[in-house]
Amino acid sequence: MLIVQKYGGTSVGDAGRIKNVAKRVCRTKEAGHDVVVVVSAMSGETDKLVNLAAEVSENPDPREMDMLVSTGERVTIALLSMAIHSLGHAAQSFTGRQAGIISDCFHTKARIEKITGERLREALKEGNIAVVAGFQGINEKSDVTTLGRGGSDLTAVAIAATLQADYCDIYTDVDGVYTTDPNMVPQARKLDKISYDEMLEMASLGAKVLQTRSVEFAKKYNVPLRVLSSFTDNPGTLVTAEDSDMENVVVSGVAYDKNQLKITIVGVPDKPGVAAKIFSVISEANIIVDMIIQNVSEGGLTDVSFTVLKTDSKRIMDVMKKIVADIGARDVNLEEDIAKVSIIGVGMRSHSGVASQMFSALAQEGINIMMISTSEIKISCVIEAKYTELAVRMLHKVFELDKVA
Amino acid sequence: MLIVQKYGGTSVGDAGRIKNVAKRVCRTKEAGHDVVVVVSAMSGETDKLVNLAAEVSENPDPREMDMLVSTGERVTIALLSMAIHSLGHAAQSFTGRQAGIISDCFHTKARIEKITGERLREALKEGNIAVVAGFQGINEKSDVTTLGRGGSDLTAVAIAATLQADYCDIYTDVDGVYTTDPNMVPQARKLDKISYDEMLEMASLGAKVLQTRSVEFAKKYNVPLRVLSSFTDNPGTLVTAEDSDMENVVVSGVAYDKNQLKITIVGVPDKPGVAAKIFSVISEANIIVDMIIQNVSEGGLTDVSFTVLKTDSKRIMDVMKKIVADIGARDVNLEEDIAKVSIIGVGMRSHSGVASQMFSALAQEGINIMMISTSEIKISCVIEAKYTELAVRMLHKVFELDKVA
Repeated sequence: MLIVQKYGGTSVGDAGRIKNVAKRVCRTKEAGHDVVVVVSAMSGETDKLVNLAAEVSENPDPREMDMLVSTGERVTIALLSMAIHSLGHAAQSFTGRQAGIISDCFHTKARIEKITGERLREALKEGNIAVVAGFQGINEKSDVTTLGRGGSDLTAVAIAATLQADYCDIYTDVDGVYTTDPNMVPQARKLDKISYDEMLEMASLGAKVLQTRSVEFAKKYNVPLRVLSSFTDNPGTLVTAEDSDMENVVVSGVAYDKNQLKITIVGVPDKPGVAAKIFSVISEANIIVDMIIQNVSEGGLTDVSFTVLKTDSKRIMDVMKKIVADIGARDVNLEEDIAKVSIIGVGMRSHSGVASQMFSALAQEGINIMMISTSEIKISCVIEAKYTELAVRMLHKVFELDKVA
Repeated sequence: MLIVQKYGGTSVGDAGRIKNVAKRVCRTKEAGHDVVVVVSAMSGETDKLVNLAAEVSENPDPREMDMLVSTGERVTIALLSMAIHSLGHAAQSFTGRQAGIISDCFHTKARIEKITGERLREALKEGNIAVVAGFQGINEKSDVTTLGRGGSDLTAVAIAATLQADYCDIYTDVDGVYTTDPNMVPQARKLDKISYDEMLEMASLGAKVLQTRSVEFAKKYNVPLRVLSSFTDNPGTLVTAEDSDMENVVVSGVAYDKNQLKITIVGVPDKPGVAAKIFSVISEANIIVDMIIQNVSEGGLTDVSFTVLKTDSKRIMDVMKKIVADIGARDVNLEEDIAKVSIIGVGMRSHSGVASQMFSALAQEGINIMMISTSEIKISCVIEAKYTELAVRMLHKVFELDKVA
């Protein structure tokens, strides 16, 4: 088999941990597999470099920022290759450029355009373990680019797709994907497998195990992903295409997100085109809106509510002042103490009554639902932030997530 | 004018110093010059990386070592470019590869084969300050190489030669080349100019301002070098082709070297081919011999003495045991407490009696001369180490180096 393994910053945080990763990599090689390893910068290194940049410039140039932070992964690939040599195996390090990772020109958040992978194929053919710098590529000008948050996961998945690897194993500091946050719910259970779509909903709802972009990429190229811990030998969670087993499980996870705030525009004239106007102005300001609801109109006036990320709170209020004046609305309110709780499961497609089960469970606990949004495989409710923990624990129990399927 | 400036690790040791270098670079640009800046890694960074390598491997692979340590200069070029932007000037960073520095394949001590410099020319044409990573190149396999000790000076000189720069300014923590070590002789005087050949002798005799390889390169391509301090605005020393002024000065510098030891093989059969045998065996062991003397033969036996670097002391003694047995010599002695003092000056070519003046000066102080070696522009004497300071001070005075020429 050809296995692509990816180790994050915590897994390669110091010389001792790098040696441990080397052992793990060599064990896979000794089991008869071909191995490509993708690594992040040692934890803390990227922050250190970003701080240095802040010391010399208030607004660092993106091209130079990429030149700077891409050094972190280069340090790790060199050290890991050396550590593998010490264990008696052949290994070669490759930068993004050397691995043939071609990206577009958007520095600090570039997108992979293609991967040639020539030198990786050669290295594997010669019996080497190939050690690749995550998070980086090269653009048509031959300048170094970086792929943005979660870029190393993306590198691993894209290489796995290019080389048609049998598995892409993502090693992190948790040992898999859980039915919910184990820190909040002690009964949370590790899932043996989960579909790409469910994983995507989990990720976009704030579960931090995998970034949305890499799951999308894995889905598109049908790369079997495994989420594993680099500190244990537990089997982890397989993220894969949906199968019939999965449909039998109505709800596979409960997620929550406390990073949003709710805006309500009060007294909006209920005329065609008003909603379009509001959301096109917000979109022009590059602010991403998540949920939207519009109340029933009363006397030609209505209320429009929506949620955005808390990090956008200043910018959204600036935009809102302009909009309120433009459309002649009465006022705008901001609510910060909200949370979104969601249940996710591909089984919802074939099971009815899931939504009402969720709503009545929340009602029984006296939790008021402020907004609702649904997709084929997900139901989300916005509630008061102080009820987050209560709601998550209760939904985890109601949908029997603590019981082995 | 086109000026290449090179700043060493101490000059870019932290964010504050990088900002200072940026100011200096911008001042040169504002004076109407085109500027290419070559920088080393921040002081301490390379050592930190080398130590990490030692933690993961007893014998790190040279290719991976180059991948590792070449990151240090990349960090500096990115930070310096950002700092220049903050001062309102256009700048672009270039790795060795991007600057078109093509080297041979000898990792950790590669030699520059050619410099294309295309992107540098373009960047300058567009009004940019070009900021180049010193010490590194790329080989035909597209792997990163490093140029060994003093590699950043070499990068600067080689780029200056390629772009036909008007000056190559080497910024260090001293403000020029002195008649002798100012720490030993307070009357040491900074030289306004010095010839390439004199500088080469000074460098090979232990003066640490410039590495031999970069001076050789500058001489070969006739690049005017200036040695300057990055902490003052003093004019520095110009290293250039010999001119008639220089010949009027008989001695321009006094150098000393305490890093050698003396080996004497006692009772060597005085037959043809014996010396050849001794020194070919030493050369095969990759040990560099500096001075050699052979005594007058007595009763068919002679003594052979030579000096080698103290760092080779273990290896040379292993080799010597073998040689002594092979050639049937009586014994071998090692003297560690020696020093070499030298006077250097192109004026020696046209002035006679310089050697005898040196020998009698040493004799007057009761300093015994153990070995002598001369070149056209240099006389070196090996003496007891304890007399080093006395000899250097006295020679500095005898040849009137404290007086402005």
